[in-house]
Amino acid sequence: MAKSFTDRLRAPDSSVDLAKLSTDAHPGVESKKAALEAMPKLGERLAELQERLFAQARGGGSPARDSVLLVLQGMDTSGKGGTVKHVTGVMDPGGLRITSFKSPTEEELSHDFLWRVRKALPGVGQVGVFDRSHYEDVLIVRVRNLVPREQWEPRYGLINEFEQELADQGTTVVKCFLHISRDEQKERLLARLDDPTKLWKYNPGDVDERELWPAYQGAYESALELTSTATAPWFVVPADRKWYRNFAITNLLIEALERINPKWPPAGYDVAREKARVLES
Amino acid sequence: MAKSFTDRLRAPDSSVDLAKLSTDAHPGVESKKAALEAMPKLGERLAELQERLFAQARGGGSPARDSVLLVLQGMDTSGKGGTVKHVTGVMDPGGLRITSFKSPTEEELSHDFLWRVRKALPGVGQVGVFDRSHYEDVLIVRVRNLVPREQWEPRYGLINEFEQELADQGTTVVKCFLHISRDEQKERLLARLDDPTKLWKYNPGDVDERELWPAYQGAYESALELTSTATAPWFVVPADRKWYRNFAITNLLIEALERINPKWPPAGYDVAREKARVLES
Repeated sequence: MAKSFTDRLRAPDSSVDLAKLSTDAHPGVESKKAALEAMPKLGERLAELQERLFAQARGGGSPARDSVLLVLQGMDTSGKGGTVKHVTGVMDPGGLRITSFKSPTEEELSHDFLWRVRKALPGVGQVGVFDRSHYEDVLIVRVRNLVPREQWEPRYGLINEFEQELADQGTTVVKCFLHISRDEQKERLLARLDDPTKLWKYNPGDVDERELWPAYQGAYESALELTSTATAPWFVVPADRKWYRNFAITNLLIEALERINPKWPPAGYDVAREKARVLES
Repeated sequence: MAKSFTDRLRAPDSSVDLAKLSTDAHPGVESKKAALEAMPKLGERLAELQERLFAQARGGGSPARDSVLLVLQGMDTSGKGGTVKHVTGVMDPGGLRITSFKSPTEEELSHDFLWRVRKALPGVGQVGVFDRSHYEDVLIVRVRNLVPREQWEPRYGLINEFEQELADQGTTVVKCFLHISRDEQKERLLARLDDPTKLWKYNPGDVDERELWPAYQGAYESALELTSTATAPWFVVPADRKWYRNFAITNLLIEALERINPKWPPAGYDVAREKARVLES
């Protein structure tokens, strides 16, 4: 049996050295052509599994409580927005709950760091997507010293407890680090500056963050080391090639949904009796 | 110039007699084949306009404040969920905000009827979609006497004021009544009962509502008469044919977005200077 993407892309168990993990490999598929040819069928499969997940939360008997949460993290231009568009875009938007986390508001800052995250969780049967997430509270917050170490350091443990709580409630968390190279980021930033339809995606602050590249890579390494658990493992997705990023994350979502194995639910009513009622009506 | 769908499908200005409005016509397109052939290009057009809407709210200078709100109403099985999936599904889900309104919770009932609706409005640059809406408060609420007439009757005026307020803030409201025949509903209910993958969509309460068909048609007629304004007109979409429903609503959204005419925004920074910064970084 072919190795799953869940196995292939899982973050190393021990210490993580991002410099040693490829940003442009394409494990699990031979070529761009093969990946692109496979995508339509994978998209259909993903959409059907999503519909089953949605359906089984609304069926008769005791409806299932499962949901999925896709967490997307990565440096600027790593493709978080592109993943939302191209990967989650094949699913029924009625069953998606997408949240793009920005700098926290004053109200959000006046609460625990998980407060705004809890409000954005997927409901039963939904697929939630976080474009950035609670991990920012151990990434930019750590790199830029937005709170003292005594505050951010305990967050790794708090995050693990939080994600365990989600698992206990039936939420499968799929955490993807979109791993791009520093050179690829430079090219993508320049491409934004060269294209009138992309100027709005560029922010001068992006270069300020880029200049802290080594500190960010270190902060990502710590996050991957300290929060990749059996319950909610991290996946390191080589993301220099957009086609591979989309292909890999589509497969990771399909595999997560296959583990849930959502079923079309039974009727919560007497089908024959209802047919008769409709026919008479 | 071809007549727009906005003109073709607009609800009558004076008294509305739904029995006289076709549920299976296909104004504006010759055949199913022609509609299906046109859909891929229309989908691309809609997706591009959505991206421009999203972009112009985030550009430099004084970002635009426009947004769009698609309101879907219709009897059970009229295709509200199918519209969300097939029409809004071509857009980037990151720019969509979809809300499916259910029976109000106790908390929602303890507030004004527009309270939960305001919380679900699209942000600037977003396309909001309401699968059912504040109109339920003059539909099922009226048909089933859930509140006394003195309470629901003033709501028509309150809704018009609310939608004027939305327009003043930059939200274009596109209200679609999905018009199906009573026979078509019967077929669709029976189809749900015959398909193991659709049993979960059926609810015995659907027949109870169906038995109130004339009362609902009357309540819809009042809503269309009293709340189809120059600011936020209603569209009556013949919805017995799913392909036409999708085709027509796609066109209505495209026309609404073309009236907004969102533009790729200018850079809010010095492009040449930023290129130099990226190159040096």
